[in-house]
Amino acid sequence: MSEVTPNGNMKILKLPTIKRLPTYLHILKRLEKEGNEYVSTTALINELDFKPILVRKDLVLMGIPGKPRMGYFLKDMISAIENYLGWNKTDEAFLIGAGSLGQALLGHKPFEENGLKIVAGFDIDPKKIGTEIHGKRIFPLSKLSEMVKRMGIRVGIITVPWQEAQDVADILVESGIWGIWNFSMVELKTPPDIVCHNESLSSGLAVFSVKMGKMRDQH
Amino acid sequence: MSEVTPNGNMKILKLPTIKRLPTYLHILKRLEKEGNEYVSTTALINELDFKPILVRKDLVLMGIPGKPRMGYFLKDMISAIENYLGWNKTDEAFLIGAGSLGQALLGHKPFEENGLKIVAGFDIDPKKIGTEIHGKRIFPLSKLSEMVKRMGIRVGIITVPWQEAQDVADILVESGIWGIWNFSMVELKTPPDIVCHNESLSSGLAVFSVKMGKMRDQH
Repeated sequence: MSEVTPNGNMKILKLPTIKRLPTYLHILKRLEKEGNEYVSTTALINELDFKPILVRKDLVLMGIPGKPRMGYFLKDMISAIENYLGWNKTDEAFLIGAGSLGQALLGHKPFEENGLKIVAGFDIDPKKIGTEIHGKRIFPLSKLSEMVKRMGIRVGIITVPWQEAQDVADILVESGIWGIWNFSMVELKTPPDIVCHNESLSSGLAVFSVKMGKMRDQH
Repeated sequence: MSEVTPNGNMKILKLPTIKRLPTYLHILKRLEKEGNEYVSTTALINELDFKPILVRKDLVLMGIPGKPRMGYFLKDMISAIENYLGWNKTDEAFLIGAGSLGQALLGHKPFEENGLKIVAGFDIDPKKIGTEIHGKRIFPLSKLSEMVKRMGIRVGIITVPWQEAQDVADILVESGIWGIWNFSMVELKTPPDIVCHNESLSSGLAVFSVKMGKMRDQH
């Protein structure tokens, strides 16, 4: 994580702040689209569900100087966040597992706007191989290793069933991938020099369920 | 959040622990399936990517008594976690927005095993209305309010584009829903007595991107 970005002076951010950055970015871009040049802290707080104190803290951490009575210059804030996230550079990715979740991700437009370009999918289902899903060609899994090497792909997105996930991760690692975004339900074992980020719908469901249980107790 | 569960003595857990519970549950269930009755702390730590100290802390918070030299009784741990999450009760849900992400969620089997049963989908696309996706019938959005009320549905899952999300949330709230699981990119405004949980792929991508940026700097 770089400490200084060209358009800001971002400190090293902690995970919860990093997770909030896309929400800030989304709102800042909308405000810019609506013709605004500046946003005040108060206006930003009103747009968000986060606690005001959290937003104020995040703004300090982002290190973007505001102007008295004007607020923050939207263009500066947007590029500072994009630089920090690296969303102004593009990583090319392969997606492995063209099931329903994989297909959704192949068609998820915000990824490409945010520096992640899925260039192809892989599957073992002969009915899917050779077809295009959301404009992305599906190749047989047997071609994965060769194509990662030949095309210098840096990112693998794993959306296969959990039983297959470790095997796919092993192929990716052996082929020279840098990072794995893992949507399978299993914790993958990867060497320490590989970025492996586990995404889990179950964690989201767990938080939602606990909140719902509390609500149920009140009724 | 209940402080005591029938099969354990769970304290009030913090968000990061709650988010880890599905991973514990997944591994405990697998170990049970493989014919084990007990699991030791060390064995559990080996199965997980979490820091050992974190696992030990979580186990204390879960409040399940272990047996010396035997470890934890799998059945007790599994039901304690399921009780805590409320995953042994089932909430019926409607999903609104049968696009690619919505379709993936309609077909996501773990939800049903984990107490969330999606009973129908809603959309405005005439080509989708009346069809079945992963065995779930798609109804016109205009029927949403009436059907929430008539069927006493408690949970709404929002997978519409962000421009439509607040309107859908308003319909759900007005119809008497208790909880909204929001997959659109926008922060929804809902009354304080409604559970509203925002799921964001962008947060996951942000964390992954920052990790990848660090990796890129090392190369």
